[in-house]
Amino acid sequence: MEFFFKPRSVAVIGATPNQAKGGNAILRNLLWGYPGKIYPVNPRYSSIEGLVCHPRVSDIAGPLDTAIIFVPAAEVPAALEDCAIKGVPGVIIESSGFAEIGGEGIRRQELIKEIAARAGMRIWGPNCMGFVDARSKHVFSFLSPGALQYGLIPGKVSLIVQSGMLSAGFLLDIMSQGIMGISKACSIGNKADIDENDLLEYLLEDPDTDVIGLYLESFVRGREFIELCRRGGKPVVVLKGGKSSSGAKAALSHTASLAGNHDIVRGALAQAGVVEAKEFKQMMDLCRSLAYGAGRNNHWRKNVAVLAFSGGAAILSADFIEETGLEVASISSETKKTLAEIFPDWMPVRNPVDLWPAIEKQGPDGNVYNVALEAVLADENVDAVLLHAVAGAFRVRLDLAEIVRLGSLSDKPVFLWIMGTREEIFQFQKEAGTLGLPVFQDLYRAVECLAATLDYRPGSSALPQVDFRNPSLPGELSAILEGKTGVLDEHLSKRILKAAGIPTVPEELLVSEGDLEEIINGLGFPLVMKGLLAGTVHKTETGLVAMNIENGLKARESLGKLKEIMAGRGDILIQKQIPGRLELIIGLLRDPQFGVAVMLGLGGITAEVLKDAAFAIAPLSHKDALSLIGRIKARQLLDGFRGSKRVDRDRLAQLLVNLGNLGLAYPRIKELDINPLIAGDDGFWAVDASLILED
Amino acid sequence: MEFFFKPRSVAVIGATPNQAKGGNAILRNLLWGYPGKIYPVNPRYSSIEGLVCHPRVSDIAGPLDTAIIFVPAAEVPAALEDCAIKGVPGVIIESSGFAEIGGEGIRRQELIKEIAARAGMRIWGPNCMGFVDARSKHVFSFLSPGALQYGLIPGKVSLIVQSGMLSAGFLLDIMSQGIMGISKACSIGNKADIDENDLLEYLLEDPDTDVIGLYLESFVRGREFIELCRRGGKPVVVLKGGKSSSGAKAALSHTASLAGNHDIVRGALAQAGVVEAKEFKQMMDLCRSLAYGAGRNNHWRKNVAVLAFSGGAAILSADFIEETGLEVASISSETKKTLAEIFPDWMPVRNPVDLWPAIEKQGPDGNVYNVALEAVLADENVDAVLLHAVAGAFRVRLDLAEIVRLGSLSDKPVFLWIMGTREEIFQFQKEAGTLGLPVFQDLYRAVECLAATLDYRPGSSALPQVDFRNPSLPGELSAILEGKTGVLDEHLSKRILKAAGIPTVPEELLVSEGDLEEIINGLGFPLVMKGLLAGTVHKTETGLVAMNIENGLKARESLGKLKEIMAGRGDILIQKQIPGRLELIIGLLRDPQFGVAVMLGLGGITAEVLKDAAFAIAPLSHKDALSLIGRIKARQLLDGFRGSKRVDRDRLAQLLVNLGNLGLAYPRIKELDINPLIAGDDGFWAVDASLILED
Repeated sequence: MEFFFKPRSVAVIGATPNQAKGGNAILRNLLWGYPGKIYPVNPRYSSIEGLVCHPRVSDIAGPLDTAIIFVPAAEVPAALEDCAIKGVPGVIIESSGFAEIGGEGIRRQELIKEIAARAGMRIWGPNCMGFVDARSKHVFSFLSPGALQYGLIPGKVSLIVQSGMLSAGFLLDIMSQGIMGISKACSIGNKADIDENDLLEYLLEDPDTDVIGLYLESFVRGREFIELCRRGGKPVVVLKGGKSSSGAKAALSHTASLAGNHDIVRGALAQAGVVEAKEFKQMMDLCRSLAYGAGRNNHWRKNVAVLAFSGGAAILSADFIEETGLEVASISSETKKTLAEIFPDWMPVRNPVDLWPAIEKQGPDGNVYNVALEAVLADENVDAVLLHAVAGAFRVRLDLAEIVRLGSLSDKPVFLWIMGTREEIFQFQKEAGTLGLPVFQDLYRAVECLAATLDYRPGSSALPQVDFRNPSLPGELSAILEGKTGVLDEHLSKRILKAAGIPTVPEELLVSEGDLEEIINGLGFPLVMKGLLAGTVHKTETGLVAMNIENGLKARESLGKLKEIMAGRGDILIQKQIPGRLELIIGLLRDPQFGVAVMLGLGGITAEVLKDAAFAIAPLSHKDALSLIGRIKARQLLDGFRGSKRVDRDRLAQLLVNLGNLGLAYPRIKELDINPLIAGDDGFWAVDASLILED
Repeated sequence: MEFFFKPRSVAVIGATPNQAKGGNAILRNLLWGYPGKIYPVNPRYSSIEGLVCHPRVSDIAGPLDTAIIFVPAAEVPAALEDCAIKGVPGVIIESSGFAEIGGEGIRRQELIKEIAARAGMRIWGPNCMGFVDARSKHVFSFLSPGALQYGLIPGKVSLIVQSGMLSAGFLLDIMSQGIMGISKACSIGNKADIDENDLLEYLLEDPDTDVIGLYLESFVRGREFIELCRRGGKPVVVLKGGKSSSGAKAALSHTASLAGNHDIVRGALAQAGVVEAKEFKQMMDLCRSLAYGAGRNNHWRKNVAVLAFSGGAAILSADFIEETGLEVASISSETKKTLAEIFPDWMPVRNPVDLWPAIEKQGPDGNVYNVALEAVLADENVDAVLLHAVAGAFRVRLDLAEIVRLGSLSDKPVFLWIMGTREEIFQFQKEAGTLGLPVFQDLYRAVECLAATLDYRPGSSALPQVDFRNPSLPGELSAILEGKTGVLDEHLSKRILKAAGIPTVPEELLVSEGDLEEIINGLGFPLVMKGLLAGTVHKTETGLVAMNIENGLKARESLGKLKEIMAGRGDILIQKQIPGRLELIIGLLRDPQFGVAVMLGLGGITAEVLKDAAFAIAPLSHKDALSLIGRIKARQLLDGFRGSKRVDRDRLAQLLVNLGNLGLAYPRIKELDINPLIAGDDGFWAVDASLILED
């Protein structure tokens, strides 16, 4: 990718002297900051913007690393063929009129892919805005040169954006607000060749990039994306467009019906430690927060000290801190003593700290903010500080450089919430932005970004290979998974599960009525009796389940009733009735973007209505599985609630790992439901299961 | 209150020529816009800022409607006494040093209350920043006169703020951003006399106020506040500070343990149709949105058309619309035809509408936004429009006045989401603000405010008196509620409930063992047998409940076991076992701010862990009760889920109304739990109950 980001020379195919056109904007943007050789290409001109213009790329004499194409779509294939003749390694196609317009455009996109593949060229785009590198001042884009008047603030955050207009709107916003610097901002357009994974891989290695933010409407290679994020060791923030439902899908399994359009994506991102954003500005705020604070606070605690200009601001800050799952720090008595020295006597010092009485007492020359900040940062009970200030009108000493210094010394993040007049906020933000301090005008956003920063765990979380074990099933069962189609019956599904390391309830098929006594003696009461009919997934609703069978008489009665309903079809299954502490649902499905996804949900209709289920992508490490368990909303139920015993999370995690491995080993498994999985006194039992194979 | 807001004359006690002091700021702020007579009061000067200065208020010759006091706290009582001599009807005390500092301050606040009460004067404050009336240019506050350089934009939103610094920070922010106008902004400080209810009552009648926003840290008279909001007929937005937990409270009843610090407030506000804000800026955004759009869209639908500058913005808008509970409108084929005319042929027209291809086709002189807006506003399937634009760089015709006109014509709200450069956003916002159009820089905020606007139902919702009926209990039961203390046993609790109109499960006390047969015959199997021991609330955990008694033998067995545990103490209760479709928990408790609060929750541990319960304040109208039912998260369970029958919401509402009335009629009822209330095939049954009286 170096030929894109660090080319020795760039050609602009479609360059023009008309300043209203994008082909001119690209040229002027290059002239603004790119120091290498620039070749305008257009057969109609001999020179543009003071540069020699060539009729074709192949006419250029010197070496050429990158060509930017901005001609009408119909002319792109010819231009690209010419690039192939010249042997350009990388071409950025910023023209539109390809797959995004359907029909002819799709065919045209296929054509350029073929041309590029044949010549071994990489294509960026089409239908994109290229990229901007604020550190090296490379603007390889048709964005309006007027926007550059705001200057590019070089920073450590790089962006990958799958929407041309948005990437431009983004940049305008970011540059003009002046609150954050950028490293590289890449608009990836139709992703005909270069996609988010290519760029992500590059940026994860890029020394100029500390944090990567992505706006994506699709994941071209979802599994690889997740693996890159896990291995990367840099914070990644993703905003996914297109979360809303596209009509209900018909789903056979509970697992599939619990998987909304976005649930699997959400699970995959959480599993890879990716921070999920919900909108543009918030994505940028998360990125700049992580660029400042990721890696500070390595002790997994979240105790926040609040220093506020007013009592009201202090109270609301504490409210948000608790709502966001952070803690309002219990400051030490030493800290209280230090703070008390700057406060009037009547003021009881407590966190959140209302600084106003101290500011009033110390006067405009007082140094209240710094004294208070130093005190709370030195406090062992404090992991981070939220500092509220009012810019303008009330003049108070607030030394931003000192805040940075104190924060760095203590290695604890300090986040700022600012209020005041427009102009003074702007100046304050600019100064803070230059220093890398995260400043916010919205309280909740400041707290949300602080939380994401404290949550971030530095370091790679690449999947340990040892955790991935292929279940070696007996040949007979393997053959079924490789040869059969459609819904397997409960008994067969569970035989496979048992072989794959998922404990199933003791049960026997009743082959002959004469075996009833022996089976009963083997299993012991209470029993459940089920009628298995081919293709029937919901047995309870069709009267095919008899529960609470406590004696032989009742067993014979139940058998009679079942046989009547089944009228000679199907099989009778007798199983031990397990007294359950808690019912869970686990399952898996195959997602087109991410592959095998494992689901964990709580049983019961309340959990079902509230869609309390979470997903992760297989293979799962043991840690992944534990984290999946921790993403269930009502997870408190697993830890012993109302006197019930705690569920063994490690054993449950192992089941989930095994389930994922089964799905990976047998690609014809389409969906799999274990519903319920009962947490009993001596472990977990798959009580009912349904395995669905590809047709 | 007219003497505060429309005084003929104002005195400033503590006026000073020192421009660094608040006593001077008040004077200059008055001179800036107040047209009436202004009297500086200070014994040390004969004239200040060109006005004659009086040593005391009582020395002023003319009539005096309002005095503003800004002297050290210790001197306030004397100044107030002097106001009493002069017979000033209203005094605004902006000095601090009262209840907020504790100890001496509390005594001082009591003293000034006494002085005022004796003289029949109303006090505003102390420890406040007075008020600003942007329409009449009355600035009765010590806020920095420099802030007035931004001008006051007169608007229809009034504010009541219980935090001096915040009210000032607010105003600076609002004025300098220029995006919204204000009517009156009132800082109420310690609320020694004038409180939020006094001001709310005034503002609800104020013709210059359309929407009222409040920041409150406490409700002085909660019930009256709610009643004012219900009667008011104007949108009210409340931001409550101090929601976080102040340590776990010991609670006997489930109802009390489900009531977090803020749950009752939340319920009361929802019941009164008050919009709850979560932070300052959002509160202002909600206020300006309601000032623009409350009352539009009277048909209770929420179908939104999206017109976006780019595809990415369109996709994310649709995501947020669905997430927020709004609908992405299905635009009509006629609208599609109109839109198709401005789009290129290849572009399939659908909502959300990506306008970019049309903008590209029509060029900078095209009228894409207006044509598209007119088309979707004319569409019967569209109830509101979310319009996204980029200010700066991409020049597109966007006529804000025309947007206002089209929106008003159709009576459908149009909300704008804007992106772009700082300066051009500012100009855009200012223009839109002047026109009253709601513009937002954050997508999610635009959608959230649009949702609140579409949710708002105009008109008063005063409680119909007919719905409030005192339950007339038999004298014996009344006497218990008036005379006993502590926890009443299950049977007695249910006798009271039954008499109050809440159906209870058929049951009998077993007075003598010989009655067992007769009771069994009367109730019929299956039965439940319970041991009632004084003070024991959790019977199940102590083995005092035997269920599923299906025959006489088992009944005698269970009786034996219970008697053994009870060892001669307490009573035996036998009740019919009701086959339940759904278990609910209902209850009531007495809140210090809001009085009797009725709770509805779902049964089951998942609902308990997820705290799926909602509150409302008694008396409840039938509509209130239905709305309470609608606030349960898993309410879908009530409507028949997985084949179960729908629960009769009207009957459930009646129970809730009756429960509230019982609480109101007997003020010694402290808490009351009905757990479970079973929804059976033929109605609801209180199966267990526990009524707790004041000690």
